[in-house]
Amino acid sequence: MSLSIRTQVAIIGAGPSGLLLGQLLHKAGIDAVIVERVSGDYVLGRIRAGVLEQVAVDLLDEAGVGTRMHHEGLVHGGFDLLYAGQRHRINMNALTGGKNVVVYGQTEVTHDLMDARTAAGLPTYYEASEVQVHDFDSTHPRVTFTHQGQAIELACDFIAGCDGFHGVCRASVPRQSIQEFEKVYPFGWLGLLSDTPPVHDELIYVNSPRGFALCSQRSKTRSRYYLQVPLTDRIQDWTDDAFWQELRLRLDDDARAHLVTGPSIEKSIAPLRSFVTEPMRFGRLFLAGDAAHIVPPTGAKGLNLAATDVKYLCNALVDFYQNHSEQGINTYSERCLRRIWKAERFSWWFTSLMHRFPDDGPITAKFQEAELDYLVHSEAGSRVMAENYVGLPLDFAEPSR
Amino acid sequence: MSLSIRTQVAIIGAGPSGLLLGQLLHKAGIDAVIVERVSGDYVLGRIRAGVLEQVAVDLLDEAGVGTRMHHEGLVHGGFDLLYAGQRHRINMNALTGGKNVVVYGQTEVTHDLMDARTAAGLPTYYEASEVQVHDFDSTHPRVTFTHQGQAIELACDFIAGCDGFHGVCRASVPRQSIQEFEKVYPFGWLGLLSDTPPVHDELIYVNSPRGFALCSQRSKTRSRYYLQVPLTDRIQDWTDDAFWQELRLRLDDDARAHLVTGPSIEKSIAPLRSFVTEPMRFGRLFLAGDAAHIVPPTGAKGLNLAATDVKYLCNALVDFYQNHSEQGINTYSERCLRRIWKAERFSWWFTSLMHRFPDDGPITAKFQEAELDYLVHSEAGSRVMAENYVGLPLDFAEPSR
Repeated sequence: MSLSIRTQVAIIGAGPSGLLLGQLLHKAGIDAVIVERVSGDYVLGRIRAGVLEQVAVDLLDEAGVGTRMHHEGLVHGGFDLLYAGQRHRINMNALTGGKNVVVYGQTEVTHDLMDARTAAGLPTYYEASEVQVHDFDSTHPRVTFTHQGQAIELACDFIAGCDGFHGVCRASVPRQSIQEFEKVYPFGWLGLLSDTPPVHDELIYVNSPRGFALCSQRSKTRSRYYLQVPLTDRIQDWTDDAFWQELRLRLDDDARAHLVTGPSIEKSIAPLRSFVTEPMRFGRLFLAGDAAHIVPPTGAKGLNLAATDVKYLCNALVDFYQNHSEQGINTYSERCLRRIWKAERFSWWFTSLMHRFPDDGPITAKFQEAELDYLVHSEAGSRVMAENYVGLPLDFAEPSR
Repeated sequence: MSLSIRTQVAIIGAGPSGLLLGQLLHKAGIDAVIVERVSGDYVLGRIRAGVLEQVAVDLLDEAGVGTRMHHEGLVHGGFDLLYAGQRHRINMNALTGGKNVVVYGQTEVTHDLMDARTAAGLPTYYEASEVQVHDFDSTHPRVTFTHQGQAIELACDFIAGCDGFHGVCRASVPRQSIQEFEKVYPFGWLGLLSDTPPVHDELIYVNSPRGFALCSQRSKTRSRYYLQVPLTDRIQDWTDDAFWQELRLRLDDDARAHLVTGPSIEKSIAPLRSFVTEPMRFGRLFLAGDAAHIVPPTGAKGLNLAATDVKYLCNALVDFYQNHSEQGINTYSERCLRRIWKAERFSWWFTSLMHRFPDDGPITAKFQEAELDYLVHSEAGSRVMAENYVGLPLDFAEPSR
């Protein structure tokens, strides 16, 4: 016997995209049920990005979950580029007419969204197995899954695929209806999280002959550092000591002097990938966030792109239910993709600018250094860097311009 | 019996670099002799670039050979980018505070310089064979060559290597003293020169699914068009008709409607290369222009970089003879290279942005389109394009800044 439930929007995935969408829909008076394959604790255990663009900050406020972020998040008006042994600050705030980013871990964002959802008593099925999406080419899509031994059928108007790169939603689209673009990078990021004060007030992006490094942070007492490593490296071969030693070698004297080391809380190697799906809507199924696109983490765009997908989707659904207009639904994919490709391009470019590519000759490092030297010495160059990093305006390059 | 001659500066090569240096030194009262391997007519037969930056225009004026250029050259304040079937103008003039480029063929520049040299009665040995450079690690360098059956020894204070990529000067430097950086591109440019009016007032740079194209010009009645072609293509397989047909396919409707075709005057396939030598000075031997560096022609930087090398070199020699200072000589290589790497980077980037790379996947074309769409819609992005195309200021990124 299967249990039948009815909702307006079935959201697959309780990561930040799905939770944010659920919260925004709730604010708009639209019913949604979230179905998640793993447990809430498992979702929270994922260590991901920590830099929010203004657009994402605004959305979290709009969803009513911005209080702790504003209290604990660190506002950054710039970041450092380190190359040829010298550090140069990109003054984002001044270059973009006052825009900043907020350093606040994705784990914290997810936590705040989960708390809000619980407080509002909104339905989420965690540890749902055998999740399947059906009939999204009709006006009566369905989601089926098993929860605590119970088979459940969720009837809905729309399905939001917020279930990540490996999720069931994109995989359920007929192959002939979808085009995938992909680039895999020939290196990985070895990340280390530690309860040590950050080496610097702001982030430091490092182009070093030994490879890329990033000095990031989650708070005034929690640091996140990354090292470019070969994909063949195994995490068990990297002791904390070896990590800190290698990081030192990629820093400048000043950063070396200020680096505080300590035991790792988490340490892992992640591959880097650029990936985009076209289109992002298939009848009544919408893909959002990692389900539709992946960026290499260099530009800190992953969570921010997910947030804008969710905003476009929420707007489209509100338009549908309140104004009986399918305009937002019909343009969802195009609007998302226009923004996504800009961020994909930036992330690929910034990755290419900062890493050593094992198959490239020595001229590539010279091009990188010349480009960095150009960027920091040209107002226009610095502004290109800043306006992309802080996030292009939501209406950037839209046809109405 | 060998004839012995004495001069202050021996210039190897009577291309635009060598001729411009000779003219500037003459204006400064410094003796120079030019030694050229081929004939003057052969030098003039080379079809090369046709876009002069303001810096190059100023230098030709300084050399006293700017009259015809100002009369016949076409001042361009912008150029078009064509991608995704749409043309977008980069308003260089507005974006750079009033800077322009001048369209005036390298052949014409060379002609004007040769005429000035002849009028001033300055010595040039054309068709010199067995050219060799000697003792440039001492204060008494020498050049030996054979001219009309006569062995000649040219004693001098300095040797200027303006003899191009395949010249004897760079080849004479001990291998351990020089580092070479190189990138060869996996395609060529098929160029066609015709006495037809240009398709457009300004240049059109084309990113097309069929490959790059460039609509350039030499005058109001002479056009120069280029097509990206595989390196395996042979010039004899490209009829004029086939060229025009392929060009049409890469243009937009408006350009197609305005294209005037006609018989080719010249047609050739050229490879694309990025190449830089470090350093550019070896004792009393200086490399300048193509002898030290090659850019892919996409950014129109070749002749312009040669001109600024020559300017730095002339200044250094004037400083030496007039002020007894070796400061200019000692910093020649560093100053040139700082500028050259910026232009090399720009040329590589513009080339990468506009061409189809046979080994790249479909994501690369999407990155290109996203970048072009970003560039034309962002003021900062457009300005980055414009300020590099028009030429960075001579003191850009110098330590004093």
